[in-house]
Amino acid sequence: MTDRDVVPEDITEDTVTDAVVDSFAGSADPRLQALLSAVVRHLHAAVREVEPTIAEWEAAVDFLTRTGQTCDDTRQEFVLLSDVLGISALVENINHRKVAGATEATVLGPFHMTESPVRANGDSIDLVGGREPCVVTGRVLTTVGDPVPGASVDVWQADENGFYDVQRPDVQPAGNGRGLFTTDDEGRFWFSTVVPSWYPIPTDGPVGRLLGATGRHPNRPAHVHFIADADGFVPVTTHIFVAGSPYLDSDAVFAVKRSLVRDFDPVDDAAEAARSGVANPFRHAQVDLVVERAEPTAAG
Amino acid sequence: MTDRDVVPEDITEDTVTDAVVDSFAGSADPRLQALLSAVVRHLHAAVREVEPTIAEWEAAVDFLTRTGQTCDDTRQEFVLLSDVLGISALVENINHRKVAGATEATVLGPFHMTESPVRANGDSIDLVGGREPCVVTGRVLTTVGDPVPGASVDVWQADENGFYDVQRPDVQPAGNGRGLFTTDDEGRFWFSTVVPSWYPIPTDGPVGRLLGATGRHPNRPAHVHFIADADGFVPVTTHIFVAGSPYLDSDAVFAVKRSLVRDFDPVDDAAEAARSGVANPFRHAQVDLVVERAEPTAAG
Repeated sequence: MTDRDVVPEDITEDTVTDAVVDSFAGSADPRLQALLSAVVRHLHAAVREVEPTIAEWEAAVDFLTRTGQTCDDTRQEFVLLSDVLGISALVENINHRKVAGATEATVLGPFHMTESPVRANGDSIDLVGGREPCVVTGRVLTTVGDPVPGASVDVWQADENGFYDVQRPDVQPAGNGRGLFTTDDEGRFWFSTVVPSWYPIPTDGPVGRLLGATGRHPNRPAHVHFIADADGFVPVTTHIFVAGSPYLDSDAVFAVKRSLVRDFDPVDDAAEAARSGVANPFRHAQVDLVVERAEPTAAG
Repeated sequence: MTDRDVVPEDITEDTVTDAVVDSFAGSADPRLQALLSAVVRHLHAAVREVEPTIAEWEAAVDFLTRTGQTCDDTRQEFVLLSDVLGISALVENINHRKVAGATEATVLGPFHMTESPVRANGDSIDLVGGREPCVVTGRVLTTVGDPVPGASVDVWQADENGFYDVQRPDVQPAGNGRGLFTTDDEGRFWFSTVVPSWYPIPTDGPVGRLLGATGRHPNRPAHVHFIADADGFVPVTTHIFVAGSPYLDSDAVFAVKRSLVRDFDPVDDAAEAARSGVANPFRHAQVDLVVERAEPTAAG
């Protein structure tokens, strides 16, 4: 007599997926159960389709491990992986569906790691002194065009060499290219900066090497990130892309929307330059961000 | 005139998956292209099914990041994640399909991190002096029952408290519970040890907390790991489970096969105990590992 009879049935290739999904049945959180069950079923389907060798499974484990270990306080390699696989764009598109009428959303990206310094309208976010000054003026508006006073506008961008402050702490002070603004009574915000450059996403980590191995270029078209938020509204996370930038038609992270491309017009006006505190000539972009009212909650 | 017209078409919820899959078209390695395309299509399908919120996406990124950062020289949390989601069992089952006739394979597990010390047949892998000594005798055999001399047999196991050496370096010397043996002219190997305990997988990391959040117990039935390998044969990675152990019917990593459960019989034989270098009484398990011949290569 052996106790091996307590094993009711072997778990096989055909039954393992149901066994794993069933194992979540005791979950206290039905949403967590649904999320995990979907991920397990779809990942198992991928495994069944490609039938990875043991060596390929080990390579995947190693890749994911290195991706986690490449993350630190100023670098988020898993966001980058999500971005280059189009997961971020898909999640943004799905969530944006629910706030149609607002400015189109696009991916957060991996460089929103540090808090943007609070700045006053008219401040410069260029702490270095770039070659191509730029004035950004904008408004936060409701979907019917009313101004939204007191909205927060979080801005971050690469410099004219294509690097964020956290990537080049040797040449950029912390907070360069970043600012947290508040709209005035007419819903307006304004600041000066430099025209950002297109740039490659970091290529020295696992995700960059993955792109190299698949023959993909790592480049993103020039853009400025924005998050507009106000009490009673759905926040919008988006970019404004610089019209004419290379890679608008092949963004490495699938984030370009035509509605988000803006002209950064050349301006030659010494008086206007002086008023904005920039050298003449300069560039100018107008950025209106439209936010949708949040559904009223039970409390309000 | 603006250059925004260079953006041919917005990438939408409906087109992003094809756009990502198409981006791998320039891959120099068609297998890598196939693997990535399948993972992208199935992960996108999971996202479409559950429509994660931005907060849920951020939680997933954070979970994966912490999983990577929990890995070190002696801990592999991504293997553990693959194990508890049944991915490891599925991959093993798929690969084992190709060597039917051999001892059934099961998962590698996360504790095969260090090289097992080379030991001679008859050595003990219990460097601590456990309470319940055990003699393991076995053979490596072909599928027609012929002995395989000179085969390597890599063994690793938890101690009688359910911990591997790398988990408790304070009380277990490195190499405790591990040994790399070579079969003799008759295909035999033998060693002494302690009967391993069932154990919980590590619960102090992201994967253990995930199990807790889903109401799953973290326990594995008692087992000894083996990898048998010999020139000209397909290596087999497996466990031998201790008959009568708790959790044989609910292994946290879905790895139990009835064919892998063995009686660890009580033996009361002072002469035999003396010959094996263990205290009397002791336990005894017979472990035959059957390996299949590898397909001949083009060269031979």
